Amino acid sequence: MNAKLQELKARLAEVDDLNHANAVLGWDQQTYMPPGGAPARGRQMSTLARLAHEKFTDAAVGRLLDDLRSYEESLPYDSDDAGLIRVTRREYERSTKVPAAFVGELNEHSALSYQAWTEARPANDFNRMRPLLEKTLDLSRRLANYFPGYDHIADPLIDFADYGMKAADVRRVFGDLRAALVPLVQAITSQPPANDDCLKQHFPEDQQRAFGETVIKAYGYDFNRGRQDKTHHPFMTKFSLGDVRITTRFNEHDLGDGLFSTLHESGHAMYEQGINMDYEATPLAGGTSAGVHESQSRTWENIVGRSRGFWEHFYPRLQEVFPDQLNNVSLDTFYRAINKVQRSLIRVDADEVTYNLHVMIRFELELQLLEGTLEIRDLPEAWHARYQSDLGVTAPDDRDGALQDVHWYGGIVGGAFQGYTLGNIMSGLFYNAALQAHPTIPAEIGQGKFDTLHGWLKQNVYQHGAKFTASELIERVTGGPLRIEPYITYLKTKYGELYSL
Amino acid sequence: MNAKLQELKARLAEVDDLNHANAVLGWDQQTYMPPGGAPARGRQMSTLARLAHEKFTDAAVGRLLDDLRSYEESLPYDSDDAGLIRVTRREYERSTKVPAAFVGELNEHSALSYQAWTEARPANDFNRMRPLLEKTLDLSRRLANYFPGYDHIADPLIDFADYGMKAADVRRVFGDLRAALVPLVQAITSQPPANDDCLKQHFPEDQQRAFGETVIKAYGYDFNRGRQDKTHHPFMTKFSLGDVRITTRFNEHDLGDGLFSTLHESGHAMYEQGINMDYEATPLAGGTSAGVHESQSRTWENIVGRSRGFWEHFYPRLQEVFPDQLNNVSLDTFYRAINKVQRSLIRVDADEVTYNLHVMIRFELELQLLEGTLEIRDLPEAWHARYQSDLGVTAPDDRDGALQDVHWYGGIVGGAFQGYTLGNIMSGLFYNAALQAHPTIPAEIGQGKFDTLHGWLKQNVYQHGAKFTASELIERVTGGPLRIEPYITYLKTKYGELYSL
Repeated sequence: MNAKLQELKARLAEVDDLNHANAVLGWDQQTYMPPGGAPARGRQMSTLARLAHEKFTDAAVGRLLDDLRSYEESLPYDSDDAGLIRVTRREYERSTKVPAAFVGELNEHSALSYQAWTEARPANDFNRMRPLLEKTLDLSRRLANYFPGYDHIADPLIDFADYGMKAADVRRVFGDLRAALVPLVQAITSQPPANDDCLKQHFPEDQQRAFGETVIKAYGYDFNRGRQDKTHHPFMTKFSLGDVRITTRFNEHDLGDGLFSTLHESGHAMYEQGINMDYEATPLAGGTSAGVHESQSRTWENIVGRSRGFWEHFYPRLQEVFPDQLNNVSLDTFYRAINKVQRSLIRVDADEVTYNLHVMIRFELELQLLEGTLEIRDLPEAWHARYQSDLGVTAPDDRDGALQDVHWYGGIVGGAFQGYTLGNIMSGLFYNAALQAHPTIPAEIGQGKFDTLHGWLKQNVYQHGAKFTASELIERVTGGPLRIEPYITYLKTKYGELYSL
Repeated sequence: MNAKLQELKARLAEVDDLNHANAVLGWDQQTYMPPGGAPARGRQMSTLARLAHEKFTDAAVGRLLDDLRSYEESLPYDSDDAGLIRVTRREYERSTKVPAAFVGELNEHSALSYQAWTEARPANDFNRMRPLLEKTLDLSRRLANYFPGYDHIADPLIDFADYGMKAADVRRVFGDLRAALVPLVQAITSQPPANDDCLKQHFPEDQQRAFGETVIKAYGYDFNRGRQDKTHHPFMTKFSLGDVRITTRFNEHDLGDGLFSTLHESGHAMYEQGINMDYEATPLAGGTSAGVHESQSRTWENIVGRSRGFWEHFYPRLQEVFPDQLNNVSLDTFYRAINKVQRSLIRVDADEVTYNLHVMIRFELELQLLEGTLEIRDLPEAWHARYQSDLGVTAPDDRDGALQDVHWYGGIVGGAFQGYTLGNIMSGLFYNAALQAHPTIPAEIGQGKFDTLHGWLKQNVYQHGAKFTASELIERVTGGPLRIEPYITYLKTKYGELYSL
């Protein structure tokens, strides 16, 4: 058995090497690559992806998984070996159901569509994207149909990102959340908006970067096993458990942009850095779902990084860095500014309270597109109509409307968005559980100390990597299923105080 | 035939993608990778190298080459298709003679040895390297013996880097060069040394970088298809013909270090950037030999970049960048400083005249080690003895002695050094041919214009990539074989004027 397991691990390491080499190529593409490198880079990345898929779906992997079944069954469910075999089998079965030729077709189309979107969005040209998006939708449906037996055609696509969730589950959770959010948004926006002028002054990039890196070092992001570079669209990427990088961008006229982007990505990165090093080069060495991943970026960006206690410690330090800009701005004013709630057009700029409404709009539109109850040609109008009804605002064009997010234009339609809101909900769940175990956490945050919270998250979430599913993690931590209440309570408490509701 | 050729090209592109992905990983390793990334990066690079070797040595490639032989023979020798098939066959035959297991063993040992050297050199600990170098020598001999029928055991290893050259050829050329160099060095060093204090002031890094990049842009290095980053040991690397990068380092107390390193690497890079774009993703898309490559780095670093005319144009500009440091330094003084000749210990810091003596020492020691007439344990003493007899200096330790260069410690013993001096010789040959075609070149250099020289080199050397061997290129350009005379004439004229010989 040991020999079989070693052979499986060797094959998985080879696949992992190809995938992480590809991640290096992708990182370089978005940080440092000169324009002339683009054509070959696309081909190189596609070759590595194809070879990784070929190696992972090799029939020999399937035979090893079969041979190892009795060994797996002899082990406790939570043993590392059992987890490795279980998660590998799940991914193997998923990967082998999709023909390699289809994967190639999808990747090629995605690259084409993404390239077109980078030009069509600034040009506000939805018509250019329409035939491409129609093909993407067709490919997304075909992809889903390699997994027959679903209740809703979106189910297999949601399952890719958030294993175990179905469209009906997400709709139910989102419905409950919406019922709580709408009156909260109503109550807040009936008051005068917070003044965030203090964030819109001139903040030189170098100081912004230095301050942000000071914060994430204090969080526990390990710069010996990572680094931060500049990019157009911030992201986290991993080349190994010893090299988990983040990127950010800076707007010298908006302090919040770069700072909260850095805190957000550091949360994703600390999750990956916290994974058990024994899982290196196996399918266990990654976050377990889009939702759990997002829960950690949102924890460190919002629950911690936009909290009053955090800024009681860090605001005097920020004032030292930017005395001209902030010495006349009170902590209260600053705290209200970074938590300004408003009905707005852009998801990635949205505040904590309205953010989920942006996600729900996209999720519902995805389902309708996949069901066929909405045609691509009607998407721009449907987008505007939903924004008007749900958020009371309408974009002046498609650039900030149906062309806003890259997800449909650089990937598939389906499963791309629910993770953001599931992540918010889970951030409330996990943070609440951490507080119950360690009631001193808020006081420590007020002193700029994060070890207790970070340690609890490592112990209960990060170290496990992909060994447990999201719902297993939640069950282990809270003794029950996914619940929205802690997150709602968090929002109501924080914003109730801020707006004296 | 066309279908066979297309299939061959598709297979070669896949190999090329793997190799160039590996180049990205190597570049990142030496520029931006955090320390924690090292262990996995080694494994990833070794996996990509192994897969590339497997793909390239696939029997199907051999069958395609056989099938294409009659097509190749029907074509003119200098047609691109004939060149592609010919060069691919040469590399295929070379690669298939070496078992994959041996390649793996060698790569693994090299990585281990390199890692140890990075610690042993600063610690001046030759004893630590001794058993590793003994194994490297053993592996180098085994590698050579996969190519039986040689005259000298170094021949196959020299052939890897400088196709067509044998130890006896190199020894003859080196002997002739040495006979000309020794009296020249003698004549120069019997005079008082040039004063280079002007280079040893404080020169802030940012201005150094900006000035160097201005120069290489004027040379014709294309930043849309490349970029420059910082590294410990400067190098050129290529990810595609559209992405050819260089690295440099800066010493704020030695202006020459970073500047001439940048000019040197830009020469390597312009060679690669100048290759016919139709050769992309084939074995033709690379420099044809170590010697020809080095001829271009030395042309742009030395023949152009250390010439009087170049500095007549650029010195006033350099003085504008560093007025405090240079306004009281005359062009004459500066020109003498950057061309200071001295008997010294370090190859990479050596001047144009003595440089080749450093190379010859290493080349002869390599041959003796491979022959078995020198034991590894006696290498440090042999090094010191040769430096004493050839250059009249002795290093105080092994750090600047036998441990000085990475080549033996991160690769093999044999074939690593001759290319540097062959390159110097060829730089004289090619530059002389360019001057005969365009006598205005020196005057243009004096105006900061490089298009005529760059254009001639592209036309006669760069565009061909690996289609012609070094000796074929030389034959096409000069109508004869490799000759040292133009290089000797160049050195005697330049240094004769400088030292009034």
